Amino acid sequence: MQAEIITIGDEILIGQIVDSNSAFIAKELNKIGVSVYQITSVQDDRQHILDVLRAANQRSQVVIITGGLGPTKDDITKHTLCEYFDDTLVQNKDVLSHIEMLFDKYISTPISDLNRLQALVPTKADVLQNDFGTAPGLWMEKEGTSFISLPGVPFEMKGLISKEVLPRIIRKYKRPHIIHKTIMTYGLGESAIANSIEDWENSLPAPIRLAYLPSLGRVRLRLTAKGENKKSLQDLVNIEAKKLYPLIGDIIYGEEEDESLEALIANLLTQKEMTLATAESFTGGKIAEQLTAIPGASNYFKGSVVSYATETKIKLLGVDEDLIKTHSVVSEEVAVAMARNAKQILDTDFAIATTGNAGPTKGDSEEPVGTVFIGISTPEHTFAQKFTMGNHRERIVQKSVNKAFELLQKEILKF
Amino acid sequence: MQAEIITIGDEILIGQIVDSNSAFIAKELNKIGVSVYQITSVQDDRQHILDVLRAANQRSQVVIITGGLGPTKDDITKHTLCEYFDDTLVQNKDVLSHIEMLFDKYISTPISDLNRLQALVPTKADVLQNDFGTAPGLWMEKEGTSFISLPGVPFEMKGLISKEVLPRIIRKYKRPHIIHKTIMTYGLGESAIANSIEDWENSLPAPIRLAYLPSLGRVRLRLTAKGENKKSLQDLVNIEAKKLYPLIGDIIYGEEEDESLEALIANLLTQKEMTLATAESFTGGKIAEQLTAIPGASNYFKGSVVSYATETKIKLLGVDEDLIKTHSVVSEEVAVAMARNAKQILDTDFAIATTGNAGPTKGDSEEPVGTVFIGISTPEHTFAQKFTMGNHRERIVQKSVNKAFELLQKEILKF
Repeated sequence: MQAEIITIGDEILIGQIVDSNSAFIAKELNKIGVSVYQITSVQDDRQHILDVLRAANQRSQVVIITGGLGPTKDDITKHTLCEYFDDTLVQNKDVLSHIEMLFDKYISTPISDLNRLQALVPTKADVLQNDFGTAPGLWMEKEGTSFISLPGVPFEMKGLISKEVLPRIIRKYKRPHIIHKTIMTYGLGESAIANSIEDWENSLPAPIRLAYLPSLGRVRLRLTAKGENKKSLQDLVNIEAKKLYPLIGDIIYGEEEDESLEALIANLLTQKEMTLATAESFTGGKIAEQLTAIPGASNYFKGSVVSYATETKIKLLGVDEDLIKTHSVVSEEVAVAMARNAKQILDTDFAIATTGNAGPTKGDSEEPVGTVFIGISTPEHTFAQKFTMGNHRERIVQKSVNKAFELLQKEILKF
Repeated sequence: MQAEIITIGDEILIGQIVDSNSAFIAKELNKIGVSVYQITSVQDDRQHILDVLRAANQRSQVVIITGGLGPTKDDITKHTLCEYFDDTLVQNKDVLSHIEMLFDKYISTPISDLNRLQALVPTKADVLQNDFGTAPGLWMEKEGTSFISLPGVPFEMKGLISKEVLPRIIRKYKRPHIIHKTIMTYGLGESAIANSIEDWENSLPAPIRLAYLPSLGRVRLRLTAKGENKKSLQDLVNIEAKKLYPLIGDIIYGEEEDESLEALIANLLTQKEMTLATAESFTGGKIAEQLTAIPGASNYFKGSVVSYATETKIKLLGVDEDLIKTHSVVSEEVAVAMARNAKQILDTDFAIATTGNAGPTKGDSEEPVGTVFIGISTPEHTFAQKFTMGNHRERIVQKSVNKAFELLQKEILKF
């Protein structure tokens, strides 16, 4: 059972937007046992769209198409589908009244003829109602292949995939099971891990494939198995995953692909009824932002002092001015003071502090670009560690955020 | 002059990672006049890779391939290229000594045979030195098409594109000019804009294409022109862009694709030598994070109090407890107090404050999910506005961040 994804839009081919829709769709299809064979991105170009529709028709049973359904002139997907299916557009009353309802309820500008045009659908299409927008999804079939056209706006597309597309695929097609298990590690590089698990990797049973996914100080090891018997695949994957612990257990922090280290920390703190504050300098609020992106952060996260300016460290965090003068603002001593004071001022059990130089130019210190200190304060002690994170601003920040979570998680586990 | 991008890796097809490399490559190619005809993502599968290489060979003069060059067993790109080019791998001394240098200088784990294997390259390939990693880029040619294989790690790929790939394409190929101009708007929806500019759009001269790109309360209007004479294309695009101002000038905030509203605010504040602080509740530090992601933020950004918990609003921002009790923590009054106090405490000219309910459950207030207040404090006054941002946590936060920047920018322009 094989699917393809076709994303349509000049904005993708000129690099104006990153196609994040495909990853979402691929992940959801995988969960129900549908493999994605290929993802193809093409411009809003009639002939090219027709070509890729034809090619996909020959290879795959399901083709999901996103984009090009907007109300404006540059959107041609619907007309091109009509051409491919030798069909015409007719006004769909349900879609029209849905559009009118959306305008009435949520949209401040008055409805226009352009908006009403979105109620035109091919006669051969099943209409999939888009709860979150004016362009409906379309399901059409040709020579044994289902073509599903969805709007490119991510949250509209996601709503349609979950509510309409997946249930219909499940009803219509018999599918194998695809089991993924991802072992999340930190603190060791890809090839160092490969060396440590070489014998294990070489003796993996046939249905299991292994992949290494390195990113900013973390490596994910993904085990994949595909077959008919879900239970035996799951057992097989679990048995093999367990064998990793004696080999690299010290660097494994989780087994859930969707569970980030932040989410793990959130769960730990919520369970233990303990609280956290952050004092962020060069990370600029990113630690706080990643924590609060997870629903329920108010259970354990009290807040952050983003002390970007040196004077803010003194004024809001009460870091001693002399300490900064003596040791420089990018120093172990200042990181320790920031963490300790943040914990005290925000009255929490734990605190993270960051101070460093993310470049491109030096700030209020003489430390070279990439030098950072991460401070951690716990109910028992406060410490800071120095790291060298390269010379790429964005990566320095993200690697430091990752490292801060790594240090914090190890401390939380002691309580 | 046409190019294609092929990204290789199971992780893309199962949706484990979002392919952001293609957007970067497409954008860079566009800048030098190379159109990207198609982006194709395929699994680490020998036969499938061979198929797409063949297809791309027939269509395009340049094919850029990313991924599958890692040191581990799941990476097969190099071997498959050898098969396609009927070639063999040999050890390259320069690459080997580069790998050894990288390990010596930057990597704490010792070099292994697996790492040394990365010095194997096809005999027919030009080697492109990867300054940031162990896998070199490869440039190979067949039947008039250049195949360029790059590592999938984004910053390694980016380094190679800028330093090696683009200069070689410029030297080797004659290219037309592609001019993009993007008009950035806020505060009005896609079809409302289309109505306002309908006559203008219908009379656009032939070489110009228009696209609408809506996202979270902003719409980008992209004008594209392609041809031989750069100057006349630029003039044409500029003339047409200027005609938009009498039609929708009140919602245009910029004309630079790469210049975000935050960057515009950064420039304005730096020029005016004025400063900014933020007091963030449900946005959790995201405003601070987006500001500090731009180099030079220390010129104008002093810091933020991320007062996620109500008690932090009282303790750190000095918001009156009675005010919160009377009006609720999600209220105009509290947003005003937060903005005013943040400006005072952090001693800045401007301040942004946010308080609201991003869901999924209600917090310390009775306001429904999606209700937010954004407060702005300027040297002259302080105010807050109420918004309803839907019921999707991530979108509520991002739309509010965008709206906060919109409100702030309008105020800064008054000084």
